[in-house]
Amino acid sequence: MVKKIAAPEIERLIQLLGRLPGLGSRSARKAALALLKRRQDLLIPLAQALNVAAEKLSECPTCGNIDTVSPCTICQDPRRDPTLVVVVEEIGDLWALERAGVINGRYHVLGGHISPLDGIGPDKLNIASLVARAQAGEVKELLLALNATVEGQSTSHYIAQQLQGTSVAISRLAQGVPVGGELDYLDEGTLAAAIKSRKRV
Amino acid sequence: MVKKIAAPEIERLIQLLGRLPGLGSRSARKAALALLKRRQDLLIPLAQALNVAAEKLSECPTCGNIDTVSPCTICQDPRRDPTLVVVVEEIGDLWALERAGVINGRYHVLGGHISPLDGIGPDKLNIASLVARAQAGEVKELLLALNATVEGQSTSHYIAQQLQGTSVAISRLAQGVPVGGELDYLDEGTLAAAIKSRKRV
Repeated sequence: MVKKIAAPEIERLIQLLGRLPGLGSRSARKAALALLKRRQDLLIPLAQALNVAAEKLSECPTCGNIDTVSPCTICQDPRRDPTLVVVVEEIGDLWALERAGVINGRYHVLGGHISPLDGIGPDKLNIASLVARAQAGEVKELLLALNATVEGQSTSHYIAQQLQGTSVAISRLAQGVPVGGELDYLDEGTLAAAIKSRKRV
Repeated sequence: MVKKIAAPEIERLIQLLGRLPGLGSRSARKAALALLKRRQDLLIPLAQALNVAAEKLSECPTCGNIDTVSPCTICQDPRRDPTLVVVVEEIGDLWALERAGVINGRYHVLGGHISPLDGIGPDKLNIASLVARAQAGEVKELLLALNATVEGQSTSHYIAQQLQGTSVAISRLAQGVPVGGELDYLDEGTLAAAIKSRKRV
């Protein structure tokens, strides 16, 4: 426990900054100092941005994305194919896919993955709403774009089980060598997957 | 330049978080996501803490410390020796010395160090106020506790020059082997300083 030295208002700020991922107690202290030093161009704008975020942003009731409008911009967009739903763990994954610009469908954000050791069962994730959405009739394909980790894959497996017997086609991302990847640096699992799914040229 | 995907309010938040030291654009994105996911226990409290900081905290006109009261708690404390002023570069250094609990004097925060390449001359730092404070009569000793870097040492040198001819005693921190330090891991400069300033036992 580090001794408290600064004004309680500053200590509180350091404590909250330290809860952000990527900031330890030392870097939270540095971040707080930067905020205090740069009052006009950092402290006040960040306070305002957080106030705006707290006021305006909310979770989309359909897909779990966060946006200023509800349903979110993506769910409202008539140019997007409503028959394809891409299932992701987190909003960050949705952003990553949107940056790639390859999805013309809609999304469903689970809010994490099943992890019994952390007490996260299927009921803590947006899985029931996904099943309801898949059964409502409009969706034809569900692309499970979860992380290629043990937890992501077992969550994918659980979702696929829940949808057995429905007419929705379920797909998953291809596994293989990343574009630009050097074989020497890849793990055995990736190499094995790439060889197993090899394609004729 | 990363493509903008999320709502502009979220992009603005990511952009501001990315200006904090220790957070790059990727970790700023992760921090923003954590804030959006943890609305009640992180986003709203942090917004409030920043609002409080912007409203209540101000720079001490005497020493440059940041506090809710003006002059700051340290400058107001009658138990602290007003004849000893410890000069530091940043408030973080003041906090470090206060954590060590070895200073019973007061402080003077310069706000950085002289760095001509970055356009930071003596006029950009709280040096004039330090000279005025030293010449006002009450101060007997000025302890220059600047960083042991080239910039810190040349700033110390500049301050000492400015106070030539006054009756104020000027001291600096001892240089040597850090407590708990292993010789094998220390640089040559530190070892040379430790040997030069060796003490009889």
